[in-house]
Amino acid sequence: MTSRMDLNREKKELLEGVISGEISYHKLDSLTDKETAVMIRRFSLEELSGFDFDHIQNFSIDVESATKKNVENMIGVIQVPLGVAGPLKVNGEFASDEFRLPLATTEGALIASVNRGCSVITKSGGSNVRVFQDVMTRAPVFRLENVIKAKEFSDWLQDPDVLSRMKAKASETTRFGELVDVKPFVTGNSVYVRFSYDTKDAMGMNMVTIATDAVLNLIKDEFGAIPISLSGNMCVDKKPAAINNILGRGKTVVADVTIPAELVEKRLKCKPETMVEVNYRKNLLGSARAGSLGYNAHAANIIAAMYIACGQDPAHVVEGSSTITTMELTKYGDVYCSVTLPAMAIGTVGGGTNLGPQHECLRILGVNGSGTPPGSNAKKLAEIIASAVLAGEISLVGAQAAGHLAKAHAELGR
Amino acid sequence: MTSRMDLNREKKELLEGVISGEISYHKLDSLTDKETAVMIRRFSLEELSGFDFDHIQNFSIDVESATKKNVENMIGVIQVPLGVAGPLKVNGEFASDEFRLPLATTEGALIASVNRGCSVITKSGGSNVRVFQDVMTRAPVFRLENVIKAKEFSDWLQDPDVLSRMKAKASETTRFGELVDVKPFVTGNSVYVRFSYDTKDAMGMNMVTIATDAVLNLIKDEFGAIPISLSGNMCVDKKPAAINNILGRGKTVVADVTIPAELVEKRLKCKPETMVEVNYRKNLLGSARAGSLGYNAHAANIIAAMYIACGQDPAHVVEGSSTITTMELTKYGDVYCSVTLPAMAIGTVGGGTNLGPQHECLRILGVNGSGTPPGSNAKKLAEIIASAVLAGEISLVGAQAAGHLAKAHAELGR
Amino acid sequence: MTSRMDLNREKKELLEGVISGEISYHKLDSLTDKETAVMIRRFSLEELSGFDFDHIQNFSIDVESATKKNVENMIGVIQVPLGVAGPLKVNGEFASDEFRLPLATTEGALIASVNRGCSVITKSGGSNVRVFQDVMTRAPVFRLENVIKAKEFSDWLQDPDVLSRMKAKASETTRFGELVDVKPFVTGNSVYVRFSYDTKDAMGMNMVTIATDAVLNLIKDEFGAIPISLSGNMCVDKKPAAINNILGRGKTVVADVTIPAELVEKRLKCKPETMVEVNYRKNLLGSARAGSLGYNAHAANIIAAMYIACGQDPAHVVEGSSTITTMELTKYGDVYCSVTLPAMAIGTVGGGTNLGPQHECLRILGVNGSGTPPGSNAKKLAEIIASAVLAGEISLVGAQAAGHLAKAHAELGR
Amino acid sequence: MTSRMDLNREKKELLEGVISGEISYHKLDSLTDKETAVMIRRFSLEELSGFDFDHIQNFSIDVESATKKNVENMIGVIQVPLGVAGPLKVNGEFASDEFRLPLATTEGALIASVNRGCSVITKSGGSNVRVFQDVMTRAPVFRLENVIKAKEFSDWLQDPDVLSRMKAKASETTRFGELVDVKPFVTGNSVYVRFSYDTKDAMGMNMVTIATDAVLNLIKDEFGAIPISLSGNMCVDKKPAAINNILGRGKTVVADVTIPAELVEKRLKCKPETMVEVNYRKNLLGSARAGSLGYNAHAANIIAAMYIACGQDPAHVVEGSSTITTMELTKYGDVYCSVTLPAMAIGTVGGGTNLGPQHECLRILGVNGSGTPPGSNAKKLAEIIASAVLAGEISLVGAQAAGHLAKAHAELGR
Repeated sequence: MTSRMDLNREKKELLEGVISGEISYHKLDSLTDKETAVMIRRFSLEELSGFDFDHIQNFSIDVESATKKNVENMIGVIQVPLGVAGPLKVNGEFASDEFRLPLATTEGALIASVNRGCSVITKSGGSNVRVFQDVMTRAPVFRLENVIKAKEFSDWLQDPDVLSRMKAKASETTRFGELVDVKPFVTGNSVYVRFSYDTKDAMGMNMVTIATDAVLNLIKDEFGAIPISLSGNMCVDKKPAAINNILGRGKTVVADVTIPAELVEKRLKCKPETMVEVNYRKNLLGSARAGSLGYNAHAANIIAAMYIACGQDPAHVVEGSSTITTMELTKYGDVYCSVTLPAMAIGTVGGGTNLGPQHECLRILGVNGSGTPPGSNAKKLAEIIASAVLAGEISLVGAQAAGHLAKAHAELGR
Repeated sequence: MTSRMDLNREKKELLEGVISGEISYHKLDSLTDKETAVMIRRFSLEELSGFDFDHIQNFSIDVESATKKNVENMIGVIQVPLGVAGPLKVNGEFASDEFRLPLATTEGALIASVNRGCSVITKSGGSNVRVFQDVMTRAPVFRLENVIKAKEFSDWLQDPDVLSRMKAKASETTRFGELVDVKPFVTGNSVYVRFSYDTKDAMGMNMVTIATDAVLNLIKDEFGAIPISLSGNMCVDKKPAAINNILGRGKTVVADVTIPAELVEKRLKCKPETMVEVNYRKNLLGSARAGSLGYNAHAANIIAAMYIACGQDPAHVVEGSSTITTMELTKYGDVYCSVTLPAMAIGTVGGGTNLGPQHECLRILGVNGSGTPPGSNAKKLAEIIASAVLAGEISLVGAQAAGHLAKAHAELGR
Repeated sequence: MTSRMDLNREKKELLEGVISGEISYHKLDSLTDKETAVMIRRFSLEELSGFDFDHIQNFSIDVESATKKNVENMIGVIQVPLGVAGPLKVNGEFASDEFRLPLATTEGALIASVNRGCSVITKSGGSNVRVFQDVMTRAPVFRLENVIKAKEFSDWLQDPDVLSRMKAKASETTRFGELVDVKPFVTGNSVYVRFSYDTKDAMGMNMVTIATDAVLNLIKDEFGAIPISLSGNMCVDKKPAAINNILGRGKTVVADVTIPAELVEKRLKCKPETMVEVNYRKNLLGSARAGSLGYNAHAANIIAAMYIACGQDPAHVVEGSSTITTMELTKYGDVYCSVTLPAMAIGTVGGGTNLGPQHECLRILGVNGSGTPPGSNAKKLAEIIASAVLAGEISLVGAQAAGHLAKAHAELGR
Repeated sequence: MTSRMDLNREKKELLEGVISGEISYHKLDSLTDKETAVMIRRFSLEELSGFDFDHIQNFSIDVESATKKNVENMIGVIQVPLGVAGPLKVNGEFASDEFRLPLATTEGALIASVNRGCSVITKSGGSNVRVFQDVMTRAPVFRLENVIKAKEFSDWLQDPDVLSRMKAKASETTRFGELVDVKPFVTGNSVYVRFSYDTKDAMGMNMVTIATDAVLNLIKDEFGAIPISLSGNMCVDKKPAAINNILGRGKTVVADVTIPAELVEKRLKCKPETMVEVNYRKNLLGSARAGSLGYNAHAANIIAAMYIACGQDPAHVVEGSSTITTMELTKYGDVYCSVTLPAMAIGTVGGGTNLGPQHECLRILGVNGSGTPPGSNAKKLAEIIASAVLAGEISLVGAQAAGHLAKAHAELGR
C-alpha cells in the first residue's frame, strides 16, 4: 500500500496542489490516471485532517467503471456490513422459490429480526406476492398565460392523436422504455404533466428523463409551450407524497401470509390477538394520529438494507417508507399479515447494479441483469423485497407484542 | 484467499450443513470462529447460486466488532463508492470552518452536483446554519378502559411531580441521556405518550428505548397502566410524518445563504428570477399539488450519501426527505436560498460510527466520537449535513432553471 | 300563532306523550298531520327547556316537501342571514356574465370582504374560469381471500368487457347519470373500487350510491365478490383527502385574474409585491409547514356562505377547503391571482335546491333546475362559486398585506 | 308584504339607482333605514332576475342587530330546516344529562340516522366524553434577515420574561381571554409564532386576533420585528391541517361508549364483528390509502347540522372533519366505539349565537350565553356535539355493516 511518503515528485506536486486548492478535486482526473487521482484526493484529506486512513482505500470495485458511472471525486469506498437472512419462501408471479436475502446494514438486530420473520413466513407456506403496477414517472411543469390557455393545453395533451405522437417521439430515445400514459394536473397557470413509462428492468429515472426531454421538444414544436422545469415535483422523486401512494410509482407491490396461531405463539412468543392489537394501535391508529404517510413498523429498515446490498438508490427508501402493514385475526384465530408498497423504484440494470459486490448480491437472488422477458428480473426483485419487508414487519410487531423490544436492545448491548 | 476447494473436512461439514439447512446461519456462529463463519455462509451462497463471489469478501473492517454490534449472519461487505465535495464554508454555531464532505453513492452526477453547490455557497460567504431543537423521542401506546380513564391518565402524566419522578427514573438508565418532556395524545381509549430526550452525541434510539422502558415500570407501579407496545408510532421513526415535521425529532436544523446575482448567472448559468420560479413552481406548488410532505428537489440524495459515509442509519433518510427548500429574490436581485430539515436523526457515537471507513469519514469532518461538551459533535455534524443539503438544492434547482438536466444525464451516459 | 295553551285535548295528549318519551319524535308523524307534528315537537322542547321559542317556528318553506326530502323530526327552521355581493364579472365556459352573489352567513365582515374582491376582479376584466373535470365517485371496499385473489379481482375489474357490462348495469338505475371510470386500489386483502360517474346537474351522491349498488350485484353474480361496505372511504366524501385533491371529485375548477398594479394600490391599499409575499409566506410556506392540505386564506368561508344560500350540502365545505391560492408578480408589476378547487360537490337539482329560499338564490344566479344541455347549470354554478372564492382570497390577502385585519375586526366590533 | 309596485317615489329612485349600479349595495345603508335597504336590495335582484322572491324576505331575526354583527348587504334570510334528535345521554364533565339535539340540515335521512345513534348510546349508558384541551390560536409570520437572526428571534420569544410581558400585553385587550402559550416555528427566514389563548365561552377568533395585534406591537417595540401577515397559516383556520390534529385548536374532545352485542344486533341489525370490520376497512385503512386527514364516516354531517343550528361558523366544519372514529370488539363481544375531535372551534357567545333561532337552539341545550364559571358553557356544548358525532358514526357504520345504505336512499327517495 502506497503511503504519502512514497509519492514521487510529480504526484507530490499534485497532492500539494489539491491541498492548497489550486487543483480542484475534479481537475485532478485530467492530470493523472484514475487510481492515482483517487489516492491523491484521499491523501489530501489525510493531510488536512491529520489522520491516516486505512479503511476507505480498501476496495475491489473497478475504479474505471465506478468513476465513470457511479461517483465523482472518488476517494475510496465505504464498507457496509453484509449479512444474510432466510431462506424465505416466496409465492410470486416472477419469484417463486426459496430465497436467501442479502442485507447491508450497520444496525445490530435488524438481520436477526428479518431472519425470524423469514422463518415464520416460510413455515406458514410462503409469502403471496403480486406486482399490481409498474411505471416510472416524470412530470415537468409549464406556466401558461392563464386558466383559459391552461385548459386548452390540458385538452390538447389528452387528445389521442397527440398521445400517439408523443409515444412515437419517446420511443426514439430508448430501446426498452415505453411511454404508456400522460396526465395533466393544473394549478392556476401551472400545468404539471405526469408522463408514465414502462422501463422494464431499469429503475428508469434517467431513461424517462431523456425520453420526456424529447417529448418536450414535440410539445414546444406543436403547441408552443416550454417547461419551467423538467421536473415539477409531481413525479414525485425521493419525497414522501400522496400522489405516489395513490397512483403508484415504480412497482406497486402487495405481499401477504396467514400465520397459524400456534406458530405465532411458539415462534413469535405472543398471542395472535395481541399481535393484531399492536398493529392496529401502532401502525394504523398511531400513524393516523401522527399525520404520517407510513402505516408500518420499520419497512424502511429492510428496504434500506436490501437496496444498499443490491445496488439500488438508497434515497428511494423514502418511497418505500409509505408501506401499509395490516394484521387481522382470521375466523380460525390465525393472523393474516400484509404489506402494501405503493412505490418501489428499483431495477436490475444500471445505477449501482454493476458494481462488483452489488452484482454478487443480485446473483444471490438470481436477478442480475436484464430478465427474459425484459422487466421480469426487476419485478422478481420487487416481489422478493416486498416479501422481505413482510418478514421484517411480522418480526418487529411480534417482538413488540411480546414486550421484549427494550430487553433485546439492552441484552445485545446495541 | 481461501477457496471452497481448500476447506478442511471440519469446515466442509459445516458448509454442507449450512447448505442443507441443518445448520442455521445463526447457529454457525457458535460452531466456529467469526471469520470462518462469515466465509462458510458466503461459500454456501456461492454453492447455491452457482457463482464465485470475489467482491463481498473484500473488507478491512473488524469482524469481531461488526458481528457483535452491526450485523448478524455476516457474509462480507458491500462497497459503496466514496467521493468528496467541497470545500464548503459553514457559519454554524458548532461548525464554523471550511469542510470537505465525504459522500457515499452509486448515482453518477450527484457528487459533481453537490460540489458545484459547495463552490457557490462558499463564494457567497458560506452557509448560515443553526440547530433549533435537539430531542429524540419514543412514544409507547396504552389502552385505557375508556375516555374518562384516558383523561385521568393524561392529567396524571402532566403532573409536575410525576414528571420529576419520571425524569429521575429515566436518568438511572443512561449516563448522557436526559428526559426533557412528556406529552400525551389521546385517540379514543388509546393514549400515546411521547417522551422526548436529549441524547447528546448519540442518535439515541436505543438509549431512549431503554430509558422509556424504565419509565414504563414507574407508570405501571404508580398508575397501573401497561403499554400495548413500546412504540405506538407517534415517535415516529423512519416513517414520513407531520408530527416530526412540526414538533421536530432528532435535530431541527435550518441553513441559508444569499447568492449574488452575478454568481447565479456565472456559475449556475441561469437567471436569478428563473431559479426562484423553478423553486416556487416545483418545490412549493408542485409538492403541494402532489400531497407531498417534502418541499425540496433532492434532499434525500445528499442525506443518503452523507449518512452512509458517516455511519448513520440510512433508513433515517426518510425523515430528511421532508426538507423545505425556499428561494427568494432579494430587493437587490440576489437569490436567498434556505433549507429547513425538521427531523435529522444522527449521532457521532454508536451505530455504524465505529466501523473503520465510517469513522474515517467522521474524522474528515472532525466530528468522530463524543464532543466537548457532550452533544456538540452531533450538532456540528447536523450543521454540516444541512449545509450540504443546501448545496445540493442550489445546484439541482439551478440546473433545472438552466434547462440542462436531461442533457447532463445524456452526456454523462448515466 | 298557536301557543301551547290553545291546544285541544287530542294535541295536548300528543304533547304529553312526546314529553314523557312514550311517543317518539318520529312516531308523532304517523299520529297527526305534518304541521301539527312540527308544532308539538317544538312545544315539547319549550316545555323541557322552560322557554318559549318565537323564532324557529317562523318559516315559509313547504313542510310537506321538506319533511319528505330534507329533514326528519322537524321543529322549524334556522334563519341564516343572507346578503349579496357583486357584481362579479365571470369569463367562464358556462358562466359568462356579471353575477350578484347570494351569501348566507353569520360572520360579520365576510360579505363586505367578498364584495371588495368582486369589485377588484370586475375592474380587472373578470375572472377567467374553467371546469377541468366533473365526476362524482363512490368506492366500496371488498375483502378478498389473499393478495393473489385480489390481483385476479383487480385484473377482472379492468377488463374492457367487464367495464362495458358495469356501465350498462349502472345506466339501468339512472336517467341522467353515466358510469365513466372504474379504478381498483389494493391494500393487502382489501380491494377498494373507485367508481366515477357523470351526474349532470345533480351533486349525485345518492345517484352514484344507487347505481353502484346495482353494479355490486353484477360483481356478486359474475365474480362472486361481496363488499364489506358500500363506501370504503376512497370515495372520499366530506373528509379532507389527497386522493380528491389529486384525482378530483365533483367539479375540479380553476379561476384566475390579473390585477393591474394601480388597482392593487388604490383598492386593496397595498403594494403588489407585499400581496404576493403574504400569499407566499402564509398560503404556501405556512400551510406546508403546518402539514395542511389547504393552501388558501379562507376559501371555506365563501364556499360555506354560497353553499348554504344555494341549497348545497354544507358538509361539502370540507372538500372546498383544499383550495390552492397563488399570487405572482407579472413582468409588468401586476398581480396574477388564481384559485384551484380540486373537488367541489355541487348541483342545481335535488338536495336543498328545491327549498323556497335556496331556489330563489339559484334563480339570482340563473342556475335553478336542470340545464340545457344537462350538466351545464351545475358547471355554471361551479364557475361562479370558484370566482367568488377568488374574490374572497384577493380581498383577505390584500387586507393582510395592508395590515389592517385586526383593525377591521376591532372597528366593526366583531 | 310590500311589493315592488307599492314603493313610493323616493324608494323607487333608490331601487333604480341600485339596479343601474349607481348606488352600491353598501351605500344604500346610509341612504335609508335598514329594513328598507334590505327590501330594496332584494327588489333589485327580483328585477334583474325577472322573478319575485317570496321566501328570502320571510324572517323574524332582528335586522338592526344582524346587519351590525352578522351580515352586510342583507337581502333576507335562508331557511334551513331544523329537526330534533334524541334524547342522548351524555356523561361529560360539563354536560351530564339527557339532551335533545337541534340539527339544521337539508339532507334527508341525516337526522333519522343521528336519532338512531342517540337511542343506541342512551340505551348503552350514555356517551363518556372529556375535553382534553381548549385553546384558540393565531400565528403571524415574520421575515427575518437570515437563519442566524431567526434563531435569535426564536430564542427571545421563548424567554420566560418576554412571555410574561406578552401575556400582560394581551390581557389589556380582553376581559376574558388569556394568552397561555407562544411557540415559534422557523422555515428559512420565516418565523411563524403560534399564540395560544384560553377564550372561555367565545369561539375566540376575533379576540385572539385583537390580542395578538397588541402583542405584535410589543414585539415591534422590543425586538424590532414586524410581521408580514397577522396570520401565517400555522394557526390554522378553516383548512385541514396536521398541526391542528396533533396540537389541537379550539376544543380537543373525545367521546366513547361500549354497545352491548345484543343492542348491536337488535337496533343496528348487524353483527358486532361486521361493524368493527367496516370501521377498520373503511374509516382506518380506506382513509389511510386515500391520503385522508379524516378517519371517520360522516362526522362533518353532524357537525355542520349542529353548527348551523347553534349559530357556529359553518366553515369550521373543516376542522371537525378530521375526526378519528374507532370501533373495537371487547373481550365480551361488545362494540367499543369512540370519536376523537382534535379541533372544534365553537362558542356560546358572539358570532351567530345571538340570532333568534340560533339562540333558541342553544337554550334547548342549556348553553346560551356565558357559563358559570366562564368557559363552561362552550365546553358543555363541545361535549354534546362530540357525543352527537359519536351517535352519527355509530348509526352510519352500523347501516353500512347491515348493508342497507343504498336501500335506505332508494326507499326514502333521496
